[in-house]
Amino acid sequence: MDILIHRDELVRALARAQGIVEKRPTLPILSAVLLQTTPEGLRATATDKTMTVIGDYAATVRSSGEVAVDANNFFQIAKVLSGDIVTLTVIDNGRLEVRAGASVFKLSTFNAADFPVTPALDQARSLAMESGALRRVIDRVHFAVAPDDNRYGLNGAHVEDTSVSDGAVVRFVGTDGNRLCWAQAPYKGELGIGKKMLLPRKGLGEIRKLLDGYEGDVQIAFGDRAALVQYPGILVHLRLLEADFPDYRQVLPASFKRRVVVDRDVLREALRRVSILATDATNSVRFQFTSDALQLSARKADAGDGKEDVPVELQGEPISMGFNARFMVEVLSAMQGSRVALELGEALAPCILRDLDDDNALFVVMPVRLD
Amino acid sequence: MDILIHRDELVRALARAQGIVEKRPTLPILSAVLLQTTPEGLRATATDKTMTVIGDYAATVRSSGEVAVDANNFFQIAKVLSGDIVTLTVIDNGRLEVRAGASVFKLSTFNAADFPVTPALDQARSLAMESGALRRVIDRVHFAVAPDDNRYGLNGAHVEDTSVSDGAVVRFVGTDGNRLCWAQAPYKGELGIGKKMLLPRKGLGEIRKLLDGYEGDVQIAFGDRAALVQYPGILVHLRLLEADFPDYRQVLPASFKRRVVVDRDVLREALRRVSILATDATNSVRFQFTSDALQLSARKADAGDGKEDVPVELQGEPISMGFNARFMVEVLSAMQGSRVALELGEALAPCILRDLDDDNALFVVMPVRLD
Repeated sequence: MDILIHRDELVRALARAQGIVEKRPTLPILSAVLLQTTPEGLRATATDKTMTVIGDYAATVRSSGEVAVDANNFFQIAKVLSGDIVTLTVIDNGRLEVRAGASVFKLSTFNAADFPVTPALDQARSLAMESGALRRVIDRVHFAVAPDDNRYGLNGAHVEDTSVSDGAVVRFVGTDGNRLCWAQAPYKGELGIGKKMLLPRKGLGEIRKLLDGYEGDVQIAFGDRAALVQYPGILVHLRLLEADFPDYRQVLPASFKRRVVVDRDVLREALRRVSILATDATNSVRFQFTSDALQLSARKADAGDGKEDVPVELQGEPISMGFNARFMVEVLSAMQGSRVALELGEALAPCILRDLDDDNALFVVMPVRLD
Repeated sequence: MDILIHRDELVRALARAQGIVEKRPTLPILSAVLLQTTPEGLRATATDKTMTVIGDYAATVRSSGEVAVDANNFFQIAKVLSGDIVTLTVIDNGRLEVRAGASVFKLSTFNAADFPVTPALDQARSLAMESGALRRVIDRVHFAVAPDDNRYGLNGAHVEDTSVSDGAVVRFVGTDGNRLCWAQAPYKGELGIGKKMLLPRKGLGEIRKLLDGYEGDVQIAFGDRAALVQYPGILVHLRLLEADFPDYRQVLPASFKRRVVVDRDVLREALRRVSILATDATNSVRFQFTSDALQLSARKADAGDGKEDVPVELQGEPISMGFNARFMVEVLSAMQGSRVALELGEALAPCILRDLDDDNALFVVMPVRLD
């Protein structure tokens, strides 16, 4: 293997790879990025065994071949290389020689044949979504997926078909038990719905990163236990979680007794300020709704208390309830419109938040009991 | 106490205070900033018992008084306040009411009378230095002061008079045993030299921060066990370290066998690259000097090796020696000129580095033994 590659292109390939590989891999080869020449350039593959990302990058191939090197180590080096063009050559003893400017690095390598084979997906059906729509859906759902819950089914985003007569629609749903968010977008093609369609949290986050700066269609194919996400130059293989997602519709209140409309930024910033005086562990802030104002208040032992009034329009009876400020701020930050509606029941019933500029997403936050 | 203060001015006062107070104070009051009205505005005092910073800030005093509040807590709140003007009022129960925009915070307070009294300095003599000159001296010395050495005298910067017939000059010296740096600048007035003139590392760093953005003279007065640093609006009281600084002139070689001139940035960047493949613990890089080139090389087990050639001018015989890359990079970063001279003896003798654009500083790095 002997190739010339632009430093920025190499850094892009390795930045992606080192984000995928495990920090403390169970097998040393799992810390490696597999580099392979293709007729068009360089292919870089990284995996943590639950997900595999294969990316194609522009390079001039002088001699074909493949090699596996420690992804993080190579990334640290590539970032600081001088000169625009980097030469990558597998030399006699199997090491990878990296030349750029006045620098010469000779990197230890793994046997490329030991690199895990990406499993195939025996699934011909796939759907296509606009990259912007997929970014929007992930941004509204990813933060609400549980990071590492022992209710295993909460550790992924549930995917389902919510098509109506006039169009095909796919919905992603995430919840950690404290809040629940769904967002949906139209698709073309076929959504092959399996029984358990749970995209793991890390994979969803990595796909979101890969979508940055890409405009165009993204293809998604679901198999029984895996999904493929691809666009020109990128292919991601994701193992689906083998677990059950709860019947989330059960927690969505069918009706509400109170409806509050409020400016999203004003509420979020007021909440951020008041929550500085919320108790660290619970982060709970009192929301006292009256006909024209929401008074936020918090108290922290030994520190003091804070309160702030936010103008609102309330339909229904005044009520006082508590929320975890961080959960509420994160939901408000995942919205885009300037105004938001809160649909409330009694003090301990779930609160539904709707972005008044976006019908294709819904957010639920569970209240907390106030002392 | 009842005052109006611009939010930015309050944030400036509290940012300084929370940098001084201890994170885990031995006495609760040591986490507090003391706020006192003056005829001109607000005075804020913070201390960690080894140093005290007193700052004056513009404010409109409607009613005089004083109060002590948790510095970090108040800083977190002040940072996010809305509106330009903040009202600070001590209310009935002794709490401090903070009003800004739609927010009202009521902060717990300490008894202001419990706040430690800043000791007086019975020292009439003081010197004056240009703030830019003092910044320059601290920037060249502070990083080399030991952060927490059991050779207690290394934990401060040594101050001495190096005046010559045509002008008064003060020199600061710092060393952690691995490198040694001194820098000096002219002064006006009187330098009252005590026996042990050791400015503690943290105090030196805080003074450097306080000098940012200030142009004009800085007054420094040394007492037996403390120093006062002041400029209009700021007064810093520093306890000097009660320890002996080593006789640093003994480690400075009187002559050299080799002299190398090299571009500072080129050497520093090459060193940064090659050191990625240095062993983490020792960080050692081989410097192989020949008549026209310096070859840097490093090797890390299991990762690989790196090398790079840097053009140099060498007077004297070729030699190969080792340096801790981080120590060398930090010294090169503390210089300003484009070219630097390395004065070398044998492989394990101290290396003196001189900024060819600056006679008023000197840097020494100890070599390391190569395997």
